[in-house]
Amino acid sequence: MANKAFRYEQVVAKIEDTIVSLNLKAGDKVPSVRKVSNDLNFSLTTIFTAYSILEARGLIISRPRSGYYINAATKSSGNATSPDKYIPLPVDVEISTMATTMMKNALEHGVINFSILAPVNEFLPITRLNKAVQASLKELNSNNFQYPLVEGHPRLLKQIARSSFDWNKIISQNEILVTNGAMEAINLCLEAVTQKGDIVAIESPSYQGLMQSLESKGLKALEISIDPLTGLDLEKLEAALTENNVAACVFSPALNNPIGCSMPEKNKIRLVKMLNEKNIPLIEDDTLGELAFLNSRLRPAKAYDDFDNVMYCSSFSKSLAPGFRIGWVIPGKYYAKVAKLKFEANTSTNGLLQDAIGRYLESGHFDTHLKGLRKTLQKQVSKYISAVNGYFPTNVKATLPAGGYSLWVELPKNIDGVDFQRRALKKGIGICPGHIFSTSSSFHNFIRINCCPLFNNKIDNAIKSLGQILFELQ
Amino acid sequence: MANKAFRYEQVVAKIEDTIVSLNLKAGDKVPSVRKVSNDLNFSLTTIFTAYSILEARGLIISRPRSGYYINAATKSSGNATSPDKYIPLPVDVEISTMATTMMKNALEHGVINFSILAPVNEFLPITRLNKAVQASLKELNSNNFQYPLVEGHPRLLKQIARSSFDWNKIISQNEILVTNGAMEAINLCLEAVTQKGDIVAIESPSYQGLMQSLESKGLKALEISIDPLTGLDLEKLEAALTENNVAACVFSPALNNPIGCSMPEKNKIRLVKMLNEKNIPLIEDDTLGELAFLNSRLRPAKAYDDFDNVMYCSSFSKSLAPGFRIGWVIPGKYYAKVAKLKFEANTSTNGLLQDAIGRYLESGHFDTHLKGLRKTLQKQVSKYISAVNGYFPTNVKATLPAGGYSLWVELPKNIDGVDFQRRALKKGIGICPGHIFSTSSSFHNFIRINCCPLFNNKIDNAIKSLGQILFELQ
Repeated sequence: MANKAFRYEQVVAKIEDTIVSLNLKAGDKVPSVRKVSNDLNFSLTTIFTAYSILEARGLIISRPRSGYYINAATKSSGNATSPDKYIPLPVDVEISTMATTMMKNALEHGVINFSILAPVNEFLPITRLNKAVQASLKELNSNNFQYPLVEGHPRLLKQIARSSFDWNKIISQNEILVTNGAMEAINLCLEAVTQKGDIVAIESPSYQGLMQSLESKGLKALEISIDPLTGLDLEKLEAALTENNVAACVFSPALNNPIGCSMPEKNKIRLVKMLNEKNIPLIEDDTLGELAFLNSRLRPAKAYDDFDNVMYCSSFSKSLAPGFRIGWVIPGKYYAKVAKLKFEANTSTNGLLQDAIGRYLESGHFDTHLKGLRKTLQKQVSKYISAVNGYFPTNVKATLPAGGYSLWVELPKNIDGVDFQRRALKKGIGICPGHIFSTSSSFHNFIRINCCPLFNNKIDNAIKSLGQILFELQ
Repeated sequence: MANKAFRYEQVVAKIEDTIVSLNLKAGDKVPSVRKVSNDLNFSLTTIFTAYSILEARGLIISRPRSGYYINAATKSSGNATSPDKYIPLPVDVEISTMATTMMKNALEHGVINFSILAPVNEFLPITRLNKAVQASLKELNSNNFQYPLVEGHPRLLKQIARSSFDWNKIISQNEILVTNGAMEAINLCLEAVTQKGDIVAIESPSYQGLMQSLESKGLKALEISIDPLTGLDLEKLEAALTENNVAACVFSPALNNPIGCSMPEKNKIRLVKMLNEKNIPLIEDDTLGELAFLNSRLRPAKAYDDFDNVMYCSSFSKSLAPGFRIGWVIPGKYYAKVAKLKFEANTSTNGLLQDAIGRYLESGHFDTHLKGLRKTLQKQVSKYISAVNGYFPTNVKATLPAGGYSLWVELPKNIDGVDFQRRALKKGIGICPGHIFSTSSSFHNFIRINCCPLFNNKIDNAIKSLGQILFELQ
């Protein structure tokens, strides 16, 4: 099985080389399956499977009775307007207001949610989690109604510690602190190692919550551009760190949000070493790291941290239950400082749901769940990509993610993401403008589409409607 | 399952053999999980579990980021007398460390808890709360596993709004934000209206969590002494406000912690008016306001706030479930700012337990529960006072509280609260030294005794032991 996957990867790589050597561009026809089969000396089936992988990744698309093309597209046809029941978006882009408004629209007003990165119930192991909560409730004499320890519930801490074995790293439960989600973890790390006015290096684009947090704490963002395939450019980073007095870095080496790219292992190793040498703490946001489109998770930078210099942050919000608000931090040598700040912020994190997640993890179902979720997400994303390729104008480019929920879509330069968002909202569709993923205006013509709602006819039509708006805006 | 346990026992035995063969002594480092995994040819998970079993048995202890060590307390040669299992208190009084250590001692090491203000299970409506959580779980199609709105769960917000009728005030649910406990509410308020270096007026003594928070945010405390019967002295406050440029006040007009005093209604009215005229926001910590020894709750200052200048903070931690970590804030005219900060801090508060508390409140049992709890607490406190009066030297004075859980006890000037605390801890009794309720040393000869454990012979004996220590210290 593993051999087979490996074999396909080799074939896929060879086909990619062929495409590069032919200098093919968007819309160009790809050599036929038969031709490639002859040229590379692989069976038709093998080449067909490899092409399907490339299609799932969005690099190529198939057209009935015509063949495969480089990331090209077609047009669409009519659809009517919708009621104006949604909360209008502010004209001045203000990230916090925009984010809460998007959440309100998605949760309260039934807007088709491509905006908030929140797994729908169908992606979550709700029945098993329910049972776990019930088991926690049954222990009437337990401490589940009492103040939990600031570090977290021992049952959960132990299971989180165990999960680090997946990285081939041993983290002891004494190194972990449970938080109210990953954002709280990141905030505590920032508070521990920065002061107002400090410079913080971040990926560009980066998760919008981070941007808000930096703004609110009076920290300056130093944006390091990333490659859609290999993530952070370490040369650029090194140059930026030499020129600036950077207090901390906040990166997502395993899987970036919104692009969904992942750094090669050797780059992660170099990154961890470089930051340790410069004595700059790396705050690692690994919220999506478990959700790569592979058989197992991608290793975080923390896996290579022999220096206790990585402050690892993650949560169960994208894999188990966003509403439980349970995340954690492994702050390395900054443990004591972060623990103190957590205690001061809100004493500790609710104990009952920590206990319940701990029980769920003990049951051993999480691995199976994650494997299923990764496959589901990969299928979802590939359906969304097909729809986007089918309905959006040909000058729109969707980046292929290595995992997660999101599609990062580049629009023609003359189309503004916020304008697009406003028009989409009028049709009851929520999308995320690129503006909120950077402090600069670099991504004004980008949008993020979360592939959260289960793909069906309604979603297909919604993407068709988005395509129509784009044709109108051209 | 049985097989699995058996297998662990075998592994545990093998590790014990290894330790014996290495002739390891107390304090020596135990071979790493990875090394033992290699040597004995078991998986990392198995060895980790075996080590956890050995740790639970007290043979080894783990140290963060260091590894496992032979536990000093468990020498094979005979069992010592007093099991020094409690975590020693730091010699330099550092409020945060002290507070977390007290919590650890109370929760993990079975210390008789007069230190942490946490209602025991017997004071909580656990069965009804359990049912409420179960009802929340049953709604499989609900949004209880999804991100809650930053403001809070509508069901809970509605019930909190309704509770303001008790103050003869109408608060709409749109004025309320749910938080992870009252401390988070107070922190958000401080962040909304102060900047590093600002002066904040507080009661002296005040809740230790507030002191930590001020220190951490780089805020200066202006301590206003309070009268054990009537609370804040408004003349002194007015003078202090004239002399200092105060950015905010944090007071508990309905019921102070640790003294348990309450301001007369006319003083609350004057306080609210005075601070509004001076345009200084009043952050009101009303965590204990519901627990006066009366038939109904005491009105908070917010009840008299016609100016939207009071930022009201409270929680269910002292009345329903400390471990649920559910509190709220009514930030008045600072609502938008506080909402933004809450969203940035941790997105929102866990939804399932909000829903459950909302259901519990809807059932109408909360009022009955509170009436019962007030009576229970009054009885408890009076029994504790009798014991204190019976066993402590006559030059010790306990202040009679108007409500809540705590006894504020003044010792002779020559007795230091921290010294007393350390000696009490050796006998397995946790108390709270006065130091942590002030930034000054005004209360070095005070202690707070929380009447949390149900009064019985064991408690009576514990208070007797405290009395003995005091006689020794005289």
